[in-house]
Amino acid sequence: MKTETIRVKTNQKIELFDITGDIRSRIKASGFKSGIVMAYVPHTTAAITINEGADPDVKSDILMILDQIAPMKAGYRHAEGNSAAHVKASLVGQSVMFAIEDGKPVLGTWQTVFFCEFDGPRVRRVNINYLSCSK
Amino acid sequence: MKTETIRVKTNQKIELFDITGDIRSRIKASGFKSGIVMAYVPHTTAAITINEGADPDVKSDILMILDQIAPMKAGYRHAEGNSAAHVKASLVGQSVMFAIEDGKPVLGTWQTVFFCEFDGPRVRRVNINYLSCSK
Amino acid sequence: MKTETIRVKTNQKIELFDITGDIRSRIKASGFKSGIVMAYVPHTTAAITINEGADPDVKSDILMILDQIAPMKAGYRHAEGNSAAHVKASLVGQSVMFAIEDGKPVLGTWQTVFFCEFDGPRVRRVNINYLSCSK
Repeated sequence: MKTETIRVKTNQKIELFDITGDIRSRIKASGFKSGIVMAYVPHTTAAITINEGADPDVKSDILMILDQIAPMKAGYRHAEGNSAAHVKASLVGQSVMFAIEDGKPVLGTWQTVFFCEFDGPRVRRVNINYLSCSK
Repeated sequence: MKTETIRVKTNQKIELFDITGDIRSRIKASGFKSGIVMAYVPHTTAAITINEGADPDVKSDILMILDQIAPMKAGYRHAEGNSAAHVKASLVGQSVMFAIEDGKPVLGTWQTVFFCEFDGPRVRRVNINYLSCSK
Repeated sequence: MKTETIRVKTNQKIELFDITGDIRSRIKASGFKSGIVMAYVPHTTAAITINEGADPDVKSDILMILDQIAPMKAGYRHAEGNSAAHVKASLVGQSVMFAIEDGKPVLGTWQTVFFCEFDGPRVRRVNINYLSCSK
């Protein structure tokens, strides 16, 4: 087994960044035809989620509420000034999983995979692993 | 590998809907005896979680707080009027995983699997995959 | 397949408890060299997350925001008085997954695995399973 990596260059302080195309390309290049993909974020101020990608307003609405939950300033103790990002990361989560059939992701009609930048802009990574199914 | 599907007919605008029985039946019908089940929601205004099912008040308390976090109206930009559902979906998550031993889910005593409807009522789907374990 | 178990003795009402060392020891003892580990919490008032472990202030900042989202008292209906814990559990989630290569967890530089106690102190469990990869 070898963990593969996608590089993501984010542009904003907080941002939902569509990586569905990168993941599709990676799966195609790997030749993986059937099973489960795990996309894992090895950072603590970023996350990954699956949500609607058709209307960009959905992304800004998600970010707006996440900022209300964990605002940039909120009497945090962590001295680096990025606690808001750490909190958002644990609320959204570090990994997503989805099935692959005939070499293609089994996603819902409106589903897009978003890298969630909460302390950017930075160059980030998403690790990809291919899991086996029993049947 | 073949992704299986459970259909869920929700009854409310927002609702935690117990699908543990449906999942157990599906696993039994599939003959899957040992490994990991992934239950995946291919929607962007719904989610899936595992929590207490014995007292229905737990469900309403979870929904109450989710509604405080992401109320129906909150100055959202997304024109379809269901941004609250998209936000809740990313907070709760699109998939759960749990082990199967001797054909039975390895869940905690109080654990119930809930489909989380955030923009119903609708007919929804939950995809089921069976993952292999190494040991 | 056999689900393994780590015991966690928490000390506080709410607490992020570093279990990275326990998980590393368990993986070493199991002889698992390559694949994916799933760490699963079979409780409904606790959760598991991956976040920064270097500065303990990150833990308290995460707990502070979780308490603002789901305070101990908030007009909950559930009579046991621990609804705040149930809500936090579904926001953070019941499982994490990460890759193992050459017998070692593939975690980011700052990543620590935290058991999240939301209704302690108690003796808790984390179930460990070893998933197979296709390539």
